[in-house]
Amino acid sequence: VDVARAELATFLAARRAEIAALDPRLLPDVDRLLDFTGTGKWLRPQFLLAGHLAAGVTGEVPAEICAAAAALELVQACALLHDDVMDRSDTRRGLPSTHRAIAAAHDADGWSGDSDHYGESVAILLGDLALAWADDLFTESATRLGRLIPALPAWRGMRTEVLAGQLLDLRAAADSGETPGEQVQQALAVNRWKTAAYTVERPLHLGAVLGGASPAVVDALRRYGAAIGVAFQLRDDLLGVFGDPSVTGKPAGNDLVEGKRTVLLAVARSALDPTDARLHRLDDRVGRPMDAATASELAELIAGTGAPQQVEQRIDDLVGTAHAALDTADAAGTRVLPDDAVDLLRRLGDRAVRRSS
Amino acid sequence: VDVARAELATFLAARRAEIAALDPRLLPDVDRLLDFTGTGKWLRPQFLLAGHLAAGVTGEVPAEICAAAAALELVQACALLHDDVMDRSDTRRGLPSTHRAIAAAHDADGWSGDSDHYGESVAILLGDLALAWADDLFTESATRLGRLIPALPAWRGMRTEVLAGQLLDLRAAADSGETPGEQVQQALAVNRWKTAAYTVERPLHLGAVLGGASPAVVDALRRYGAAIGVAFQLRDDLLGVFGDPSVTGKPAGNDLVEGKRTVLLAVARSALDPTDARLHRLDDRVGRPMDAATASELAELIAGTGAPQQVEQRIDDLVGTAHAALDTADAAGTRVLPDDAVDLLRRLGDRAVRRSS
Repeated sequence: VDVARAELATFLAARRAEIAALDPRLLPDVDRLLDFTGTGKWLRPQFLLAGHLAAGVTGEVPAEICAAAAALELVQACALLHDDVMDRSDTRRGLPSTHRAIAAAHDADGWSGDSDHYGESVAILLGDLALAWADDLFTESATRLGRLIPALPAWRGMRTEVLAGQLLDLRAAADSGETPGEQVQQALAVNRWKTAAYTVERPLHLGAVLGGASPAVVDALRRYGAAIGVAFQLRDDLLGVFGDPSVTGKPAGNDLVEGKRTVLLAVARSALDPTDARLHRLDDRVGRPMDAATASELAELIAGTGAPQQVEQRIDDLVGTAHAALDTADAAGTRVLPDDAVDLLRRLGDRAVRRSS
Repeated sequence: VDVARAELATFLAARRAEIAALDPRLLPDVDRLLDFTGTGKWLRPQFLLAGHLAAGVTGEVPAEICAAAAALELVQACALLHDDVMDRSDTRRGLPSTHRAIAAAHDADGWSGDSDHYGESVAILLGDLALAWADDLFTESATRLGRLIPALPAWRGMRTEVLAGQLLDLRAAADSGETPGEQVQQALAVNRWKTAAYTVERPLHLGAVLGGASPAVVDALRRYGAAIGVAFQLRDDLLGVFGDPSVTGKPAGNDLVEGKRTVLLAVARSALDPTDARLHRLDDRVGRPMDAATASELAELIAGTGAPQQVEQRIDDLVGTAHAALDTADAAGTRVLPDDAVDLLRRLGDRAVRRSS
């Protein structure tokens, strides 16, 4: 990941020089994008590197693989910038969100027009720039490795899937005509495409094909990634309602305040009779600002439906599926994934699913 | 261009099938993107095909070149979808803009939440999808031609430049602290990157490198494209104030109503003394709804500053530069561009610069 960070820095320095040559007045805005990119946990690059290891390539990891891994952080920069505009979020990672910071600078400079709208517009364009640059970095790296053609379907799949998952998520929040059972299915589909495919399955797939993995290896990795990725999101759902704010760094019941359409909430709602007063209490409160007492009351209400146990059970089942995928054997009974990759993936998976923050 | 349309349709049908496999509930939104893409004049693909002709390739144009040309219409779909969100435009090409149409469907279906915000969010994601798919289509086509590596710098340059130009345009509208002279320079820089590079220079460049053109041909085409592209935008500026609504299809003085920061307006403002009442009249009125009488009064005011003649002169100079670029000769005195390409580019250029709509 350190090499990936260095590759990203080199790539972005070249893009910054191009922007400066076009018009240096653009640098303050573009520097916001540069400062923001790659400040997260580098989860997706880690899975790409694990996929590469699983391809059985020995020796030092080529710089081009690290560069391809870094490209995932540029896709993520686009996703977060556009998400924050769509969610109207004021903060990101404890700092003002990019569109808010730009709006504040607009105000401070006494510029004309609506500063909020200006901040959102600049953030949309910076997100577009990040997405375009992600493609540039990925395509260059894969081409230098001589592995572009086998990698393109995975790259295309990842971007289509995450955007489709986000569209589904918007729909889920807006379409109030669905039955509780349909809502559970819709929330699971959002997890599958917006989180699992984007965060785990496709990064593993990309690393594998860039390393020249066999179809059997790719298949085992993708099954593992799809299962662990959904389990990762289900753990997130539980932490979003029951997490300890001093550990998660987010307010108690954050998902409830934000009105996230999680599987946990959908399962809880589907467990309640339409006439149950608790259902109305939930629907009245979720998606609004609330004090800690209300957050804790709603958390208890959800716990009372048995939904958390159901979600925990689902996580256990998915971890079982994931571990079985890691143990996939060929016709001769030999495991298709190398031992070191299996060990790494077990560790990464456990960390994703058993965490408390 | 007909083959390019067919290539785009084939590509989008494959993407639609992928989306349907992910979740068929997404089809209504994705179909809006499909219906919208490529409904314009296909100006950029035409320049890409002209660039390919200029490379001196004889015989039928390969389908992959047409597919690469069609990819430009997907970039354009992203630009227009995001532009309409940023400009809060209600219409596009005489129909409701995409975010407005989605908001109206949200209302009609009785969905929950703010329908305007929902429409904007979906339009942002559909724009992202178009940008990602543009890359997929271009990369695939260039790879199949075996010309990806030489084409990548032009492809990267085009996307970076158009986004940089849009960022500059936002700045120009918001930064009220600049001198009239600085405003002219800023408006010219916006034209250079947002219009000229994106619409003419880089499409020609792409077509040329995909056809294996020599550096001399690429250089001549780019000089031609940069000049004609800026002239094209200056003609647009004049039509936006003095155009005949029955021919342009836009209301009289449309650019004045929208408050576009055109070179024409910047030149007019820089010609007026800071104490001139006409300057205040302009600054009071531009960027607001106005009746036809006011639009015509402001057009006369701008004409009175001599700005239109200056802009016409600039167009003539640029056309001269462009024609000189087409006549670029090598050391032996032979023109570097083939005759048929020169003829086509003269025609395309004249149409872009002499039009009345």
